[in-house]
Amino acid sequence: MSELNAAARAALTAGHVAHLATINADGSPQVSVVWVGLDGDEIVSGHLDDRLKLRNARRDPRVVLSVENGVVNEWGLAEYLVVRGTARVTEGGAAPLLQQLAHVYLGPDTVFPPGSDHPPGYILRITPTKISGIGPWT
Amino acid sequence: MSELNAAARAALTAGHVAHLATINADGSPQVSVVWVGLDGDEIVSGHLDDRLKLRNARRDPRVVLSVENGVVNEWGLAEYLVVRGTARVTEGGAAPLLQQLAHVYLGPDTVFPPGSDHPPGYILRITPTKISGIGPWT
Repeated sequence: MSELNAAARAALTAGHVAHLATINADGSPQVSVVWVGLDGDEIVSGHLDDRLKLRNARRDPRVVLSVENGVVNEWGLAEYLVVRGTARVTEGGAAPLLQQLAHVYLGPDTVFPPGSDHPPGYILRITPTKISGIGPWT
Repeated sequence: MSELNAAARAALTAGHVAHLATINADGSPQVSVVWVGLDGDEIVSGHLDDRLKLRNARRDPRVVLSVENGVVNEWGLAEYLVVRGTARVTEGGAAPLLQQLAHVYLGPDTVFPPGSDHPPGYILRITPTKISGIGPWT
């Protein structure tokens, strides 16, 4: 595991979308944009349905996640965080996690997902192994 | 080739950084954040040095590039463009391209790269094969 410092943790919990790269069965890259949060030292995202990125992560847990934090540094460059990590997929808890993330991403009064009859879904959990990018995390 | 519509072309030429996913020799994903522009129907980025992403793209031209455009849609979701494509690397022209992109990314008066003695460098050129994401390009 590679420790996320306070700045990296802030970038991952402030409502910035994350670009998640996984590997398809044919070896090509797959990229999804997801909402993320932290559960202890794991970066988490919630998924009501079993999607390509989850199937990819089960088959090959090597993933990369990148996030812009909206900060432009003193040289005019946009800061960004790149986290290489090892993913695992757990079952259940997707809707409560999505609701928690929706409060960050959409607003404190948002009800999401809509309705009340949700499948258990899945949580993608990424343990960071390498941190890079431009910003106060390297 | 998959045609980039006007909205996609705007997202790729407005100074938004692009998250570029390539495949490492060991099959794992690699992500770099790069400046991009358009050269005809190819998405281009300039590189003074031969870097991992370029070696990856030569070995396996299957790449994915994703860009946020800073727009939040009517449902509160951040728009983003995902371009799956086929990459090729050409030699030369990196510094002029970087100077052109710096005018977009850093400002119209910026001199970049600094100095005048630059290596020919490389241009990564991506031909789009599939467009996805959230926004007026799907």
